[in-house]
Amino acid sequence: MQRHDVVIIGGGPGGYVAAIRAGLAGLKTVLVEKSIVGGTCLNRGCIPAKAMIAAATACYRAAHASSVGMADTVIPFSDDGAFAHARRTVDGLVKGVEALLKKRNVTVVKGKGFLKQPGVVEVDADGKRDNIETMNVIVATGSVPFFPKGLEPDGKTVLSSDDVLESNAHVGRSVAVIGGGVIGIELAEYYAMTGREVTVIEMLDRLLPMATQAASKEITRALKKMRLKILTGRKVVELVRKERGAVLTIDDGTVVEVETVLCAIGRRAFLDGIDLRGIGAAQHKNGRIVINERNSIGHGVYAIGDAAGLSPMLAHAASHQGISAVEDILGLSPDEKAEPVASVVYSHPEVAWVGDVPVTPEAEKIAKFASFPLRALGRAHTIGETAGYATLYYDASNRIVGGDLVGEGVSELIGTVALAIRLGATLDDFARVPFPHPTFSESLMEAAHVALGMPLHTM
Amino acid sequence: MQRHDVVIIGGGPGGYVAAIRAGLAGLKTVLVEKSIVGGTCLNRGCIPAKAMIAAATACYRAAHASSVGMADTVIPFSDDGAFAHARRTVDGLVKGVEALLKKRNVTVVKGKGFLKQPGVVEVDADGKRDNIETMNVIVATGSVPFFPKGLEPDGKTVLSSDDVLESNAHVGRSVAVIGGGVIGIELAEYYAMTGREVTVIEMLDRLLPMATQAASKEITRALKKMRLKILTGRKVVELVRKERGAVLTIDDGTVVEVETVLCAIGRRAFLDGIDLRGIGAAQHKNGRIVINERNSIGHGVYAIGDAAGLSPMLAHAASHQGISAVEDILGLSPDEKAEPVASVVYSHPEVAWVGDVPVTPEAEKIAKFASFPLRALGRAHTIGETAGYATLYYDASNRIVGGDLVGEGVSELIGTVALAIRLGATLDDFARVPFPHPTFSESLMEAAHVALGMPLHTM
Repeated sequence: MQRHDVVIIGGGPGGYVAAIRAGLAGLKTVLVEKSIVGGTCLNRGCIPAKAMIAAATACYRAAHASSVGMADTVIPFSDDGAFAHARRTVDGLVKGVEALLKKRNVTVVKGKGFLKQPGVVEVDADGKRDNIETMNVIVATGSVPFFPKGLEPDGKTVLSSDDVLESNAHVGRSVAVIGGGVIGIELAEYYAMTGREVTVIEMLDRLLPMATQAASKEITRALKKMRLKILTGRKVVELVRKERGAVLTIDDGTVVEVETVLCAIGRRAFLDGIDLRGIGAAQHKNGRIVINERNSIGHGVYAIGDAAGLSPMLAHAASHQGISAVEDILGLSPDEKAEPVASVVYSHPEVAWVGDVPVTPEAEKIAKFASFPLRALGRAHTIGETAGYATLYYDASNRIVGGDLVGEGVSELIGTVALAIRLGATLDDFARVPFPHPTFSESLMEAAHVALGMPLHTM
Repeated sequence: MQRHDVVIIGGGPGGYVAAIRAGLAGLKTVLVEKSIVGGTCLNRGCIPAKAMIAAATACYRAAHASSVGMADTVIPFSDDGAFAHARRTVDGLVKGVEALLKKRNVTVVKGKGFLKQPGVVEVDADGKRDNIETMNVIVATGSVPFFPKGLEPDGKTVLSSDDVLESNAHVGRSVAVIGGGVIGIELAEYYAMTGREVTVIEMLDRLLPMATQAASKEITRALKKMRLKILTGRKVVELVRKERGAVLTIDDGTVVEVETVLCAIGRRAFLDGIDLRGIGAAQHKNGRIVINERNSIGHGVYAIGDAAGLSPMLAHAASHQGISAVEDILGLSPDEKAEPVASVVYSHPEVAWVGDVPVTPEAEKIAKFASFPLRALGRAHTIGETAGYATLYYDASNRIVGGDLVGEGVSELIGTVALAIRLGATLDDFARVPFPHPTFSESLMEAAHVALGMPLHTM
């Protein structure tokens, strides 16, 4: 039996990027994947969601072309067209990942990976079991949606994001979305943009409870303008599935009847096949594996991505942990600088935040920050998209510690703040860079001007 | 007579921002503007151009909705609708600037400013002449389009960008655009997107000769795909205006007949009323005033923006010089770090560059750089916009010195590279920041990975 340098269990954005990095470095690398490489993000997460949102956005923009002086025009929305676009996108990208793995000499083994002890990964390929010996193992098994009792998806009336993004399950004209987090908001808005009646039910007292209060407020305003019904601080106490549709009873007694229910209340680490005791791994309260700052649990076992640690469950966090784990295997010295993980919601307007931003009123009270409204930007008016703001958070020595952005295209701007945090940039740095005019990126500079007591384009 | 702290001649993005900054600091400030505040950029430059391009883009996107799985749909383009959108945008922003100036206690004087000697500005308001005494003067008189003999605009057949962006001059179904620089490219593409037959004639051997060769190539490919005719290395030797339209003879003997000619070959500093000898100012070869690193020519006279120096003639460069000039007046110590000025072309795909990027084959040969193609990004496929690339330029110690980006929305990304240059960021910094997935901003990280010899998502 061959002994490998590293076996990676799970081919999502954590695992496959780790595999490419390891292969590039000349490590003898095996990637074990039970289904299709790309994981949740590529096959039933961000990528198909963003593709479908892009389709709905095309129709939405045409319907609002008068905001740029043209006639409001109907582009008939097609569920199947949007799903087909998403699948084309996914299929092309999966082929790309497969080609990259091949190019980097990664052996991809199709099967379910079992890890009972350090150094040996057992693979079950359609019942045929094989052991792979290895110096190192990276657990990159990802996560799966979580469903409370009574809200389990049935693929017909009560759906999971998997049903919607991977299986093109039929969605009726009225939809209840349970969960006002990132996935819930994106899909709720998607259904509203495609002409459905949508009700969002969130247990906590505001939408996007992991974002700032300002971001919640802004996205709530935007969704209300799109005529979504929003119930916050509310819980579903009963769900009754009917021949067609479902009846939900809310804890305040309200009854909501809809054709389709989408349950998007959260995800949990997927650790089937990982013998935590056998590899000596502890778990966080939320079930994810406890790792050290080098993504290791010792004895040549690493764990990354949604399966481990306390980072947001996001593809780019997983990819970076995968790279770090491989570099630790290679004996490269770790990078000591902060690697702030940005979060993005692909709504209209988009929401994005990174670093140290307050999510409670108490934290907000003691935070140092300055905001700039996007409606004061020339660029916003030229494209008829003026909602939102840019807020920079900073410390006592004016170093940038966080960013909170809402607006058209802020998904592309939040990385600037992440880079700034890593580099120890100050308000002065943002104030002094001539961000090009007219762009939304000027909002970062303008917010810094506000913080420095010299607001230029706002009172 | 009152003596003022600073009198600013010209209310464009250089002058009005300087005035706001001065007013904020409590300086007794006068802004002299002969027409409407906002200058070329706001009234007849970037802002109306981008608004009109946004209108055409709405139609263009609907016509290509199948790239995101929807039916290609006609939104009829309306010249008047686009122009009306542009004027609404401009009018709103002008009102905003006026309100800001008022709020900061800036005295706006409507009239033509004359500067014959340091310390005194003469204002001619409809023939009524007044002198304003002042400690400091900032010359922010901007620039005007330049026309060679025989190509002077007549507002009917041969047009300037002013005619198009400020006066809604009629543009026929066939257009010759003379000049393949930023304004020429943006308007040529605009006319092509709005269904016109367009020929671009550029004297130098490539479009966008101030950008990298790669950027020229990419934008040339995109324009050819849109069926524009492109003549590079060619000069108009004769232009004959007819009853309707014009006949152009090119230096290779080709004859081009069109309804409308747009002449966009460049701009020159506008210094009418400025007595250069009287204030002891020298001029660069291109006519702009020579200034020192603090935007001063001595004796309390400063010059900023298109009127002075050697920076690109861009609004954000002017605004920053305006701020610097005022801070010098205030006795604040100057900022010593680099302030790289980014250039942006609002074409499809967009083109943007900043810092030290090579424009000759020789310079390119010795430059250190790495590129990443945008078609390898998930985000690009979700929205059906895969053209372009991100290139980072770096020095021997891996410090970022320049960026060259082509693609959807890169106008919002180039500021990231500008900030990085200012902060002395290295390839490692870009490689280590988990730019959020899926976004175009990942291309910067991926390019850094390529440069570091560990390409992740490209072969």
